[in-house]
Amino acid sequence: MAPVTEHGEEMYALVERLYPLCRSITGDGVRATLDIVGEYIPLDVHEVPTGTQVLDWTVPQEWNIRDAYVADPEGNRVVDFAASSLHVLGYSVPVARTMPLSELRAHLHTLPDHPSWVPYRTSYYKPDWGFCLAQETLDAMPDGEYEVRIDSTLADGHLTYAEHVVPGQVADEVIVSCHVCHPALANDNMAGVAVATFLARELARETPYYTYRFIFAPGTIGAITWLARNADRVERVKHGLVLACAGDPGSLTYKQSRRGDAEIDRVLRYVLTASERPHRVTEFTPYGYDERQYCSPGFDLGVGSLTRTPYAGYPEYHTSADNLDFVSPEAMADTLAVCRDAFAVLDRNRRYLNLSPYGEPQLGRRGLYDALGGRSDTKQAQMAMLWVLNLSDGEHGLLDVAERSGLPFDTVAAAAGALHEAGLIKT
Amino acid sequence: MAPVTEHGEEMYALVERLYPLCRSITGDGVRATLDIVGEYIPLDVHEVPTGTQVLDWTVPQEWNIRDAYVADPEGNRVVDFAASSLHVLGYSVPVARTMPLSELRAHLHTLPDHPSWVPYRTSYYKPDWGFCLAQETLDAMPDGEYEVRIDSTLADGHLTYAEHVVPGQVADEVIVSCHVCHPALANDNMAGVAVATFLARELARETPYYTYRFIFAPGTIGAITWLARNADRVERVKHGLVLACAGDPGSLTYKQSRRGDAEIDRVLRYVLTASERPHRVTEFTPYGYDERQYCSPGFDLGVGSLTRTPYAGYPEYHTSADNLDFVSPEAMADTLAVCRDAFAVLDRNRRYLNLSPYGEPQLGRRGLYDALGGRSDTKQAQMAMLWVLNLSDGEHGLLDVAERSGLPFDTVAAAAGALHEAGLIKT
Amino acid sequence: MAPVTEHGEEMYALVERLYPLCRSITGDGVRATLDIVGEYIPLDVHEVPTGTQVLDWTVPQEWNIRDAYVADPEGNRVVDFAASSLHVLGYSVPVARTMPLSELRAHLHTLPDHPSWVPYRTSYYKPDWGFCLAQETLDAMPDGEYEVRIDSTLADGHLTYAEHVVPGQVADEVIVSCHVCHPALANDNMAGVAVATFLARELARETPYYTYRFIFAPGTIGAITWLARNADRVERVKHGLVLACAGDPGSLTYKQSRRGDAEIDRVLRYVLTASERPHRVTEFTPYGYDERQYCSPGFDLGVGSLTRTPYAGYPEYHTSADNLDFVSPEAMADTLAVCRDAFAVLDRNRRYLNLSPYGEPQLGRRGLYDALGGRSDTKQAQMAMLWVLNLSDGEHGLLDVAERSGLPFDTVAAAAGALHEAGLIKT
Repeated sequence: MAPVTEHGEEMYALVERLYPLCRSITGDGVRATLDIVGEYIPLDVHEVPTGTQVLDWTVPQEWNIRDAYVADPEGNRVVDFAASSLHVLGYSVPVARTMPLSELRAHLHTLPDHPSWVPYRTSYYKPDWGFCLAQETLDAMPDGEYEVRIDSTLADGHLTYAEHVVPGQVADEVIVSCHVCHPALANDNMAGVAVATFLARELARETPYYTYRFIFAPGTIGAITWLARNADRVERVKHGLVLACAGDPGSLTYKQSRRGDAEIDRVLRYVLTASERPHRVTEFTPYGYDERQYCSPGFDLGVGSLTRTPYAGYPEYHTSADNLDFVSPEAMADTLAVCRDAFAVLDRNRRYLNLSPYGEPQLGRRGLYDALGGRSDTKQAQMAMLWVLNLSDGEHGLLDVAERSGLPFDTVAAAAGALHEAGLIKT
Repeated sequence: MAPVTEHGEEMYALVERLYPLCRSITGDGVRATLDIVGEYIPLDVHEVPTGTQVLDWTVPQEWNIRDAYVADPEGNRVVDFAASSLHVLGYSVPVARTMPLSELRAHLHTLPDHPSWVPYRTSYYKPDWGFCLAQETLDAMPDGEYEVRIDSTLADGHLTYAEHVVPGQVADEVIVSCHVCHPALANDNMAGVAVATFLARELARETPYYTYRFIFAPGTIGAITWLARNADRVERVKHGLVLACAGDPGSLTYKQSRRGDAEIDRVLRYVLTASERPHRVTEFTPYGYDERQYCSPGFDLGVGSLTRTPYAGYPEYHTSADNLDFVSPEAMADTLAVCRDAFAVLDRNRRYLNLSPYGEPQLGRRGLYDALGGRSDTKQAQMAMLWVLNLSDGEHGLLDVAERSGLPFDTVAAAAGALHEAGLIKT
Repeated sequence: MAPVTEHGEEMYALVERLYPLCRSITGDGVRATLDIVGEYIPLDVHEVPTGTQVLDWTVPQEWNIRDAYVADPEGNRVVDFAASSLHVLGYSVPVARTMPLSELRAHLHTLPDHPSWVPYRTSYYKPDWGFCLAQETLDAMPDGEYEVRIDSTLADGHLTYAEHVVPGQVADEVIVSCHVCHPALANDNMAGVAVATFLARELARETPYYTYRFIFAPGTIGAITWLARNADRVERVKHGLVLACAGDPGSLTYKQSRRGDAEIDRVLRYVLTASERPHRVTEFTPYGYDERQYCSPGFDLGVGSLTRTPYAGYPEYHTSADNLDFVSPEAMADTLAVCRDAFAVLDRNRRYLNLSPYGEPQLGRRGLYDALGGRSDTKQAQMAMLWVLNLSDGEHGLLDVAERSGLPFDTVAAAAGALHEAGLIKT
């Protein structure tokens, strides 16, 4: 296993490249983002035309933007899209006007409690335009006539999302989903995209048991589009994880699936607890990221969400302060490590059937048990075999064995391997 | 909503009128009680003849009493029914004799630990006679011959009980039951009768969902009689509450139904907790009031019991100290308020079915969702809609939604109303 | 009930007789042990030939030993089987050689952390020979040539186990199993054998409800042999207890069956808690004594294990320090008392059906209820009847009633007896 810090730096470098792009739920910013991710892992990019009905929604017009600014009465660009893609209200309709500040104010969004930060705001489904700026900037703007220009287009086009598949031994799938629609926010969600990208590479080192499907799609409408276009695939999705806010300094938070007792929930609880990391496990709520869609009652998939500090849980959330200083290589490496550990458990969490369930099979004559009897310090490997044999009744998996025995999952999985090889258990 | 204190005074005034009457499990005292209640809410009064078989029991002879006293050797009435109906052992057979105190003692009941209080005692099912008096009184009685007289009749007649129905939108019923057989005891149970009476009036202000049936009946034999005569109705009884001890200074106690997880149990637990009142929730026991009958294993109805201090839980219980000073307008108003709140939740606790369960429906185009995205302070009303949609899978009701979301039940119910109006959910 | 201390002394006397015998999983030591037990209770002794296939195992050759020693260069027997049967590695093949200490060392087992104690070691299934001795002894052994002699035989013969049955009213069985294969260890398991022996005598005083089968068999292979030869009987085994380590100074430990909620588990938890003894209840693990076999997934019997300090839980475990000083009459008497109490509960834990389940039956006219009403100090016996009636719905047994009511099991059982006699409940 490569040193964790090395991947941290690589992921950070990816975030640095992705961060400045002007993403939205459609448009060239998403495409540019996927182009860069595609340099790391091959992507299947899907383009879904405007107007396509997806579940209860309709794919909207595509939004693209070239320039936007507010110029003061002396012609100075006091708010400038070129400085940060956050400055323009997402999905702003084009505008080219002059108006007094008093009229302009209704289109200006600030954060009075954080006067130096720029908020992130959108208006996807109601035609509007606006600018986001620091309260300090607004306070310094004199009365007078302002030139307002947004050089954007809203036109029939496409919604873009991408998939990357790591083929497994079985067709049953695990999905890893992260949103790619937020503009210059580092933690939310370029850190998630970077962790997902490197996770995909790690999983491909050996053929996993499950097939792992990575989905990079705009929030809400992207997940809904994927679900609409994959109705026949959904029943193959056995587990899933929504990855977001993967790089901030906070400790990890796992938000359980709607089912609460899905296997992914048990795996994450186990791995986070066993690792002795500080962490939190929270109940499902129908808010947050795209677990909202995967866990809608019609689908009710076993999909949880892993973040560090969760949705709206930090002051920098959805502001310009969620920048490259807010995320770190160490934090992303830590998130990646937990994802790998969790999928390593999930991938081996088989149920076996004891083929010799009446009494214990004689392990000794199979070379699986110490010949010298009477000692009180029985080895973990032998205990793990007894546990696997005892619980392999078709109702318990190896995670059950690890939890009930208190033995490390790896020890339990190795014991199952030895017993399987000896023909004492079968899947 | 009328000020709580006003209802308190009205209920107290009703208790004042009912308190002195000599009630028992049959007889004119019960009829007089129901006459007074009938001035507040219309009552259906039922008269069931002596000898009628009711489940395992038989309606006993009717007991009436005109006078009773013990006169000392000098002719002073030292124990006098005219002063308090508690003074005579309930269901005493007639007696007119003279006897020495030594012989009389076997028929005198006192409370040595509370020498100034008169106990309440009965002998319904074994012919007997006796007097209840203060230990102080007994101690002051000189030896000598006493005149003993009980001018009572035990004769074929009727058992009397009454019903009041608040018609609802559906035939499914909620029963509210309180015992009317105790003589001059204020908390037990004229306070319960008064709260039930005003609760009935409040429920009738708007047509409730359920049909609410109020039962005013003597304890044990009355409830058994009602159950015997309503065998075909019992399956319509979905929920119920036995009301007793509704006016004492203690905090509220909800005793759960035998099932423990009946909807009424969940509702009372929720309402008491959400209201932040000090309160206790206790397990079912087959002792107490008429929940004993409603929760017998053959019926096993979802009927709990609401009291302030519960059965036998206060020293004044079943003594002359349970008088008009022991109950207060404020306590009864508080009990009434919790009953109203509980039935307001119960009455709206529907299960809905999300008609758009695959992904979230697009609330924005239906005017149910803010157009401006990106803000972290989502409104409660929107959160409530997302919760209702997410849990409306046919298995969760609105109380589930309120409990899991932490949102107020009223907010959840309002969200369900808006979604229902928008055609997104159905019952 | 005989004074507990008397049985204690009798059990201790039995342990004293059994302790020195050289037991193993086969051989004359087991036979001699069963002969002595057979003086107390009649035993059915079974002899199963070498080579018999029992489940996944094969009955091994029979091992017998007459003498064994290590003599130092001067001819002194520094390790001598005659002093303690622990000195020889169980199932040692015969040996008669002279060898230097350096070569001998590989066959010598000591406990460096407890230099004066002799360990207990075996090699049942791999041909080997060896001696167990104190580290102190080894340290004092000079270099030089040692005479090594083990006069043992490994030959076709039999595996021996015994049964004792206390016939009950029904054919359903409770098994009590204890291992008889350990040589000079007092607590493990001659104390268990002694408690089982006296428990059998106590149970026979009155015909119990269940049939109780006591199994005295060598560990692992003995239980496996019994299971293999009683495949048709196993479904009659409703409950069971493995008894071991029954005489040490520690408090009692009940290890639950694999099912965890078997009736025996509930009974032992209840009895230990109700008795207010210090005790521990632990989860099942597939290690320990013969509960391993009874609770293998194919059988999954409701068999728990009662010990004082559990398996490998005390330093003296499997050493010469588990001697007659380590066990006491008081500890064995205490273990016996809990077994008796537990089986007294188990044996009466019937489910009854209330024949008058609609409302309460009128207990008064059947002489089961106080005539005088109104008192707040209802008697336990009456409460117990109300509880039994209320819970006798075919789903709750008397232990449920005792647990939910908080009333003593004996009171509950007596109430059930009275109700049964009155024809109000049936089994």
